[in-house]
Parts: sequence; structure tokens; C-alpha cells
Amino acid sequence: MNAFASVAAFEAALGALPAADTSAIAAARARQGELTKPPGSLGRLEDIAVFMAGWQGTVCSTLDTGRAAIFAGNHGFVVHGVSAFPASVTEAMVTNFGAGGAAINALAGAAGLDLTVVALALDRPTADFTIAPAMDADECLAALSAGAAVVTPDLQILTVGEMGIGNTTAAAALCARSFGGKTAEWVGPGTGVDSAGIARKIAVIERALAHHGDAPYTPFETLRRLGGREIAAIAGAVVKARQLRIPVVLDGFITCAALAPLAAAAPGVTDHCIAGHCSAEPGHVRLLDLLGLVPLLDLGLRLGEGSGAALAVSVIRAALATHAQMATFAEAGVAGSL
Amino acid sequence: MNAFASVAAFEAALGALPAADTSAIAAARARQGELTKPPGSLGRLEDIAVFMAGWQGTVCSTLDTGRAAIFAGNHGFVVHGVSAFPASVTEAMVTNFGAGGAAINALAGAAGLDLTVVALALDRPTADFTIAPAMDADECLAALSAGAAVVTPDLQILTVGEMGIGNTTAAAALCARSFGGKTAEWVGPGTGVDSAGIARKIAVIERALAHHGDAPYTPFETLRRLGGREIAAIAGAVVKARQLRIPVVLDGFITCAALAPLAAAAPGVTDHCIAGHCSAEPGHVRLLDLLGLVPLLDLGLRLGEGSGAALAVSVIRAALATHAQMATFAEAGVAGSL
Repeated sequence: MNAFASVAAFEAALGALPAADTSAIAAARARQGELTKPPGSLGRLEDIAVFMAGWQGTVCSTLDTGRAAIFAGNHGFVVHGVSAFPASVTEAMVTNFGAGGAAINALAGAAGLDLTVVALALDRPTADFTIAPAMDADECLAALSAGAAVVTPDLQILTVGEMGIGNTTAAAALCARSFGGKTAEWVGPGTGVDSAGIARKIAVIERALAHHGDAPYTPFETLRRLGGREIAAIAGAVVKARQLRIPVVLDGFITCAALAPLAAAAPGVTDHCIAGHCSAEPGHVRLLDLLGLVPLLDLGLRLGEGSGAALAVSVIRAALATHAQMATFAEAGVAGSL
Repeated sequence: MNAFASVAAFEAALGALPAADTSAIAAARARQGELTKPPGSLGRLEDIAVFMAGWQGTVCSTLDTGRAAIFAGNHGFVVHGVSAFPASVTEAMVTNFGAGGAAINALAGAAGLDLTVVALALDRPTADFTIAPAMDADECLAALSAGAAVVTPDLQILTVGEMGIGNTTAAAALCARSFGGKTAEWVGPGTGVDSAGIARKIAVIERALAHHGDAPYTPFETLRRLGGREIAAIAGAVVKARQLRIPVVLDGFITCAALAPLAAAAPGVTDHCIAGHCSAEPGHVRLLDLLGLVPLLDLGLRLGEGSGAALAVSVIRAALATHAQMATFAEAGVAGSL
């Protein structure tokens, strides 16, 4: 079950990412041109149908088996007062996921996705990354593999989300180390800290960046030093999905930040991903741009849990419905083309 | 069945628009504050749940009975070469709607909406509005009433859409007469005319505006002179829905333009409406701004048929799922609040 049993295995996976099925893409694009509508008039819905065809390897993709995965973890740096909430809320929300009472329960249900919640050693927060790597190599490999383990070959789509008090701070640190820029440009209010809280986040991140400044700038080292278990699990799930050519819908700032260290080294790593939405967390716009992703929705969400990703699945489902169900000009007997 | 049997009846309806239920709004807002999430973290989804509560008059709204209505009409001014397609396509697409082969069939199905198609005298295009009113008063009242007739009291949501070759030209004319501005700022490529086609659209609209320049600037006169049957039907449906406090999801440039003459006289007329999306037709952004509506989706659609409105219903459905199904802090036993 350990998809990534060694650092070498993880790096090998990143170096051998499979491509989309170009013949399915061509066939889907041709079908779009035959459907009873002016060419291009369904906008992003057309792009989605073609994208899904490429990764599912079939002209008309289906979404009978989709999974919303949430990964939860706790962070050692929260001792520095970077969150509006105590770390105990991570476990309380995991309990809430299990009881069906959280936003993602409702949103996964509305989108027709099953929900898998993976709580990663909540009683053992990562080390304080201002003075040590957040995880040792084995801990990071275990988290990557735990993420990969939720990705079963039957899935036609995967959405990823997270729960982890303090993790916008880890996300900002990952972005800053992966892509550079001023730390302040990666930091926002998260679930609701004030300007003093934002200043604390910036200071904590800058200490962490300095502490790890001499370490190798590889995806694995950046993930294990500045990430968290839930963040590494997301990276593992997304890479495993790519190996299986399963399309992934990303959620907000944190899920995208989990991929920042990977994308800095392997820019095509998100080619099988749709950005479900643009979060209200300010670093997300910047990060999406660097990842080359255009978000599907922009509704001011800033909750995490994979909420924006699950929401986007309804739009993807509608796109596939038009692609599969619309008549062609020939079938409709509409002369010529629109 | 004639909801608007006289001009006076239509004007009276516009002068007596019911308001939302403020106690349901307050109760829904209070509930949002108790759900297990940081306040405001579901963004627009929270606003939607509160909006729906106000119009359905209940804390937790439902969407068991929703209708996608499409109105179709033909336009006399198409003789001036303002569309990329012949007028016969209007009827061909109505046939396609009936056979289940159009985008709106797939999208209404995906959104759980029934579909009602109303073809309005397709064999009798409106008069050429560059030389005469598009409709006489009885024709316009009949179209308004045909729109109202699809709005039954059992509906929990209504989406409106249209099909009518050439009708972006009518829509631009309605906007220009209702809100002013340069004609060119209201004109775009529609389903795909080139720059020469756009120039023809502008010239046709300016002739029409000049021809009707001395007529009263009332909602009814503007609708009947520059609108079309499908456009008046949309206006009638939206006003009837307001009388029954049924929330409405608007589609693109043309459905919104149907309300421009009404909004110019009665700015609150769209208070029960959600803008489903922002169309690629350039005048739509400008019009939404004047109507005070912020679109839910922005996916580059420019098809009409109510496609963007139906698509938005999936998002509204998800918003209501979170509002109804999420646990409160008390129910979840999460201490205090997030």
C-alpha cells in the first residue's frame, strides 16, 4: 500500500508523469464541433468535456464513481499564534465530517461524490518548522502514501481538500520557498486572523525560510520541511491520480500550495487538474497563475475541506451532460451547421 | 390565463412588486451564523441561502419543483443581415428542444429542472423595428401573458432563456433606449457575426432608436417597439414570478435586456433574480452592473437557451444543501464557535 516507499520512488513518479490521451482529445473536440450550437458557444463547458476525455481516455467521459478526499493534520508552528482557532478544532471537525455535519458532507452529496476522510496522526503535530523540519523523511513518505492510498483505479474523478488549523501558514511558506516573491504576498487572513495575526504569520514564515535556506530545493525536501501531513497527503494523492490518469479537482490555497514544490520542479504536474475555484485567500490568485490554472468558480469561498472542488464537480457534470446528450447537426436534421 | 390583459394591468403589477420575507431572511442569516464553519467562509453560497429564504419565505428553502422556461420568437429586422444564421434556425432549434437534443435539455436535466418551451408565432416575425413598432399593443400583451402562463404557484425556482435568431440586436436596442450610452457599447458578435456584421447591427439599432425617439419611454412602449415576442414573454414571466415570490435565475444578455426597460422605471424589479452567469456577449457585463446583479458563474458561455441559468441552479442547489444539512455548533458538540 506504500505508493511512495522511498524518496527515489516519489522522484521517479514525478519524472514519469503520463500524458493525456491525444486521440480521445481529438475525438472529443471533433464531437463538440458537430453538436447543435454555434462553435465555442458553451465556453469552458466545451474545454472541460475535452479535458475529461483526455484523462479518461474516451470521447464521452462519465462521473459515476467520484471521490471527495479530505486529509487532516496538525502543525507544530501553531504555538506561535498564527490561527484564530485552537488546534483541537482539527479533530473536532474530523468528528463532524464523520457525523455528516460539515459543509463538505453536504457538498459531496450534492455533487454525487463519496467522501473519504483521512486523519493523519492528529495527536502528533508536525515539528515546529521554525526550528526543525516539519517531518522526517519517513513521516513525509507515510503521508504521501496515505494520500495515494485513497486513489483507487475505479475513480473517474477525485477532489482533494484539507482540514488543519494553521495550515494557511504552511501553504504560504511552501509557495514562498517554491516560487519566491515577498512573503507578505503569500499571506492572508486564513479563517480570520487580524492584521497582528498576519504579521505573526509573516514573521514565522520568514524564520522558517531562513532556517531551511541551505536545504536542497527539491519537491520532497520542501514538502517535508515546510509542509504538513495533510499537505503531503494531497501531493501524494494528486501524483497517484496522475499515474492512473484520473482527473483531479483542486480546492483552494492550501491544496494548490501542496503542489507548489512539485510544480516548481515539474511544471506539467497539474496538467490533469482543474482548479475548482478561486478562494478568497489572497495568495490563491497568484498561485493559480503560477500553476497555469484558470479557476472554474469564484464565489468567495474560504473554508477548505475541499468545498470549492466538490462544488465545481456539479459544473463538470453538467459539461459532460451536454457533451454526451446533445444531438449532432446530422442527428437533429438541422441543415448544415449553426 | 391572461395575466396582463391590459397595459394598465402590466403597469399596475410593476407598481406593486411584493418584497421578500424579512423574517425568513433574518432566520436564515442567524442559522448561517450557527453552522460549523468560520462566519462568511462559504461566501456567495451563504448569500444564496439567505436570498432563497427571503423569496420562498422559509428558513431552509427547497428545490423540488423547478422549471427552465425557454421562449422563442422571430424578428422582422433580420432582413437587414444582422445574424450569422437564417431565421429558420429558430424553429429548427425549437424542434431540437422538443426532441431533447439541445444544450438546455442536458443542462435542465443535470440541474433537476423540468423544461417548458414556448414558441411564439414563429411564422409571424415581429415588424421591422426600423420602420414600425415590433409589436402592436395586443401582440405585446399576449407575449407578456404567454410568459406569465408558464409560472405556476408550485414552482420553487424558475430559470428563463430564449431562442430567436437576431435577438442580440433587439437586446442591444432595448438597453440603449433604457439606459443610454453609445450604441456600439451594447453591440457584440452574438452567435458569431464579423466586424461588418457588428457595424450593420449598430446602424440598424440607431435607425430604430431614431424612429421611436418620440414615443413614451415607458417599460411597455419600449418593450413593444424594440423587443420581440420571446423578450416580452421573459419580462412577463419574471414579473409574474415576482407576484408569486418565486425566485428567478436569469441567463445571458438577452434575458437581462428583457428587463432593462422595466428596471429603468422600477429598479427593484430584479430583486428576486439571481444572475446565473456572465455571458461572453460584451454588453452583458455593463447591463448586469446597471441592474445591480453580480453573476454567479463566468464560464464564457454565449449560447442562450437559458443554458447559463440552468447551470447556475446546480450551485444554488449546493448552497441550499449546505444551509439545510450542516450541523450547528450545538448539534456537533463543537465547543464555542469556530
